[in-house]
Amino acid sequence: MNPVDLITKKRDGSEHTPEELRFLVQGMVDDSIPDYQLAAWAMTVYFRGMSDAEATQLTLAMAESGDTLDLHDAVAPGVLIVDKHSSGGVGDKTTLAVGPIVAACGLPVGKMSGRGLGFSGGTIDKLESIRGWSPELSEERFRRQLREIGLVVAGQTADLAPADKRLYTLRDVTGTVPSLPLIAASIMSKKLAAGADAIVLDVKCGRGAFMETLDEARALARLMVAIGTGAGRQVTALITGMEQPLGNAVGNGLEVREAIETLHGAGPADFQELVERVSAEMLLLGDPACRTLDAAQARIVEVIASGAAFEKLVAFVAAQGGDPEQIRHPERLPAAPVQQTLLAEQTGFVHGIDAREVGLAVVEMGGGRKKKGDAIDFGVGVVCQAKVGDRVERGDPLCTVHAADEPGARTALSRLRGAWRVEADAADPLPVVLDRIASD
Amino acid sequence: MNPVDLITKKRDGSEHTPEELRFLVQGMVDDSIPDYQLAAWAMTVYFRGMSDAEATQLTLAMAESGDTLDLHDAVAPGVLIVDKHSSGGVGDKTTLAVGPIVAACGLPVGKMSGRGLGFSGGTIDKLESIRGWSPELSEERFRRQLREIGLVVAGQTADLAPADKRLYTLRDVTGTVPSLPLIAASIMSKKLAAGADAIVLDVKCGRGAFMETLDEARALARLMVAIGTGAGRQVTALITGMEQPLGNAVGNGLEVREAIETLHGAGPADFQELVERVSAEMLLLGDPACRTLDAAQARIVEVIASGAAFEKLVAFVAAQGGDPEQIRHPERLPAAPVQQTLLAEQTGFVHGIDAREVGLAVVEMGGGRKKKGDAIDFGVGVVCQAKVGDRVERGDPLCTVHAADEPGARTALSRLRGAWRVEADAADPLPVVLDRIASD
Repeated sequence: MNPVDLITKKRDGSEHTPEELRFLVQGMVDDSIPDYQLAAWAMTVYFRGMSDAEATQLTLAMAESGDTLDLHDAVAPGVLIVDKHSSGGVGDKTTLAVGPIVAACGLPVGKMSGRGLGFSGGTIDKLESIRGWSPELSEERFRRQLREIGLVVAGQTADLAPADKRLYTLRDVTGTVPSLPLIAASIMSKKLAAGADAIVLDVKCGRGAFMETLDEARALARLMVAIGTGAGRQVTALITGMEQPLGNAVGNGLEVREAIETLHGAGPADFQELVERVSAEMLLLGDPACRTLDAAQARIVEVIASGAAFEKLVAFVAAQGGDPEQIRHPERLPAAPVQQTLLAEQTGFVHGIDAREVGLAVVEMGGGRKKKGDAIDFGVGVVCQAKVGDRVERGDPLCTVHAADEPGARTALSRLRGAWRVEADAADPLPVVLDRIASD
Repeated sequence: MNPVDLITKKRDGSEHTPEELRFLVQGMVDDSIPDYQLAAWAMTVYFRGMSDAEATQLTLAMAESGDTLDLHDAVAPGVLIVDKHSSGGVGDKTTLAVGPIVAACGLPVGKMSGRGLGFSGGTIDKLESIRGWSPELSEERFRRQLREIGLVVAGQTADLAPADKRLYTLRDVTGTVPSLPLIAASIMSKKLAAGADAIVLDVKCGRGAFMETLDEARALARLMVAIGTGAGRQVTALITGMEQPLGNAVGNGLEVREAIETLHGAGPADFQELVERVSAEMLLLGDPACRTLDAAQARIVEVIASGAAFEKLVAFVAAQGGDPEQIRHPERLPAAPVQQTLLAEQTGFVHGIDAREVGLAVVEMGGGRKKKGDAIDFGVGVVCQAKVGDRVERGDPLCTVHAADEPGARTALSRLRGAWRVEADAADPLPVVLDRIASD
């Protein structure tokens, strides 16, 4: 078997055998296939695609290319490991609220998560707003915390799917990122390597997300469900809107506050709905007591109302070295000294908020990274006060900018002025969940 | 301008601007674009193609990427530099006969040529069968010989089209060889850099050639004519058959002998026809006295009959250090000690000869290279005694193998046995020239 033959085969539209895919993945891991051949191959996959069976075999080979976790010894016998993945977007702090809710329902959540780059932030960056909180855990401590508290969020300590790391880095610089089978294999290989029995996928769709159209998002969701199912896992994919920022807060400390509000049942309507829905889908997959979405949702309302979900966040933060007093008193979380408000210039209805512009404004203020390793200002951000469908009078606030200084605030405001589209005629609020695709 | 954007642009089906193509070619030459990005880009070109204008701009940029020659000071004032190129094939010794004929007609021929690899041989290897002959000439000696004798064949001493060298090496290992615009740019950039005013292209077509179908060969010929014309050159492309070996002889010394016979007007019918036609097309482009193909062909018959063409070969060989006595007495050229004949197993007509198998048999016997730098046995080869259309009786010779030893001869014979297809019903001889595409 040699790489040129495999490139030629895919170039000419044939399917790879499982052996060929394992050979390619082995070559990614041990560097026996050079970058230029992997790049050419990735481009053939961009043009020719892959069958579900091929994508599944590629994913399995990538999942097996490094460490694989088995967390069953860290949970009660018979309990399933349910993971969630979001394709990411502006204001996406879902894990911060879903994790405590699901854990409070008795289903353990042990996640490895990443940092943010560009206009969408990362879960670990958000949690690092909390004084002392650390993502660095040994595997042994990870397991102990999962057993004792039922909720862990750690950096990628284990060497999960190293083939994906190499291929992703290369795709990023060779124009081969937007290939559905390669995207799906990248996401799913890490979930499989992390030992999930069942997975809830939140595939974002819209101008603030990687998949801009519903058709693209559906195709990606369908393929990931097929891969997961083919690998013997239960998978549910929600396709959710990312035309405007998710919730109201964008910016690390501000998003932690909003997650806390949501655990008290007082989050912004769209975010509260999404958090409860994702949590319910996870329970449906992992908790045998929850036979229907309604039953799962009732259970969720219960752990929110009782304060159990909130207390789970407190315990989790404390277990990873964070200051629980900042969770009990969110006003103690990092805050920015300068606040300025963007006002509506006309009376009407909000028809659109450019999520990407909001995300970039926050990066610009220091709330995100332009390049790897940049320091983050946890206090800065944007809080939306009018979302799509809302009626505003001229002079009403559209959003408030939280900035480190006056010039930063002014720059952000001028960028944001064009992001809100207010028109005279009425607009409907945007739906949160656009579609659902599941195993079976 | 950055490489990822250019890859993405071509991937999505857009045309490159001339500036973008120059940027890419510059990146090939100064290594500022890494192999993995060039490989991904080449694959997008494979899938998306290029317009004639793009292919022309790419070719010009590649032609200008290194040294460029101007040979006008080495020929009489007003004389055009006419070059020829063959896409290569089994038994293709055309340059050995065309060069002396055209030069004898007064049109100077100064060629840079290459060595062979795989099943088709190179012109320089063939000429090196002649004792003492050398392709290594300084540029000054090249010009002097062109002025004095009108015929030079040298190795690539100048650094012509280095961008093509890098891209070709990469294409070879990334499955991007069979892209028409990249093939055309590779061939034409070297011809333009070598300073040709007019070019005759011999595009081989058939199982023994790179282009297997007439449609593919026509598309490549059309594109190369468009590129050359767009670059201000006159170009004539002949599409010629390569279903069976060209002429009878395959193997270095044997091919030199056959070229000598052809210069005496006694070559095999197909090869004699092709040589005279290519020569006539060159005269038509370069000799103002030849206004029609018929006039050009009459002139060619003249220089063959007078012996002027043969004497030109003698003078050329001597000028480059070769032994002219081997040309006057071809039986003194390298010969192989063992000769064995393949006999027809049934009476009938030859319907096909697998040119590639014949080429590979010669490589196997040591007459070609399996890898760069392999030494060559100039004496070995195959001489066809029955070509397509010929009637053979059971026991008649199909070909004679010239080998270094008995085992080599036996191996070659067993390979060749399957290469001749003899059937009962009559078969037509194969046409030599299948089509002609020219500027204007």
